[in-house]
Amino acid sequence: MEKLTVTPIGTVHNEATPDTRSEDFRRLVSEIVVDPKYADGLTGVEENELLTVVFYFDRNDGECRLQLHPRGDESRPITGVFNTRSQFRPSPVGITVVKLKERKGNRLIVEGLDALDGTPVIDIKPFVRTFDTGEEINDPGKDRARRPH
Amino acid sequence: MEKLTVTPIGTVHNEATPDTRSEDFRRLVSEIVVDPKYADGLTGVEENELLTVVFYFDRNDGECRLQLHPRGDESRPITGVFNTRSQFRPSPVGITVVKLKERKGNRLIVEGLDALDGTPVIDIKPFVRTFDTGEEINDPGKDRARRPH
Repeated sequence: MEKLTVTPIGTVHNEATPDTRSEDFRRLVSEIVVDPKYADGLTGVEENELLTVVFYFDRNDGECRLQLHPRGDESRPITGVFNTRSQFRPSPVGITVVKLKERKGNRLIVEGLDALDGTPVIDIKPFVRTFDTGEEINDPGKDRARRPH
Repeated sequence: MEKLTVTPIGTVHNEATPDTRSEDFRRLVSEIVVDPKYADGLTGVEENELLTVVFYFDRNDGECRLQLHPRGDESRPITGVFNTRSQFRPSPVGITVVKLKERKGNRLIVEGLDALDGTPVIDIKPFVRTFDTGEEINDPGKDRARRPH
């Protein structure tokens, strides 16, 4: 099968480093700066309390490990990459649901994004329970996590 | 910013058509056939009750709409594409949390995947609450949705 392409729409800015501990990412505040070319796509995004951010692991040098110790911890048994959230995957794409704190024009201030400073963002989606929790929500009013007014 | 590449790792097989209603997708059973080359990456995946499936909207002909009526419904106000789950996005990537019913070697039988027959799958991840719900779960035993034994 051939390669497919995705488009960077913005960049993560934060103070994370490769040494930031995974538990500290949950409270880390990041700014996603969306390319002005795509800023019209942000209309209405401020309604959401939660956003699904899709980003590209660009520090991998193309490395893919089909089987690995989760988090590189050798005390944990080797498992398949599709049973982990490792960055060393055939498609180096990370997905994290974050809290939207504020939108300032083409910049989104979010909490809980576990991506390093400078990481390309390839997509932003509203968190919708029907798609994101495996549950079926028939009431559209309850399908989203909305920000308090 | 330049284009980035992702790798198809498998294909969706189901009876969905472009006419399948969105509410019918939640109960639709699909088979994801993973390329044997990547099958080792599935080790342990059967532990999960829920999987996050990342797929590529390959019927778009590259069309991107930065602002649109949600679901093409003109009675709903135009909004930004990043405030919808539309397929017409800069990076045509869909994400759905599905129920894993069974793994048969390199084939996963899943329920609730809203992708058309033949759609390329670019990634499969375990559903992990810390990443997928915006909550912080400090107990690793509660961070996953595990299949009953």
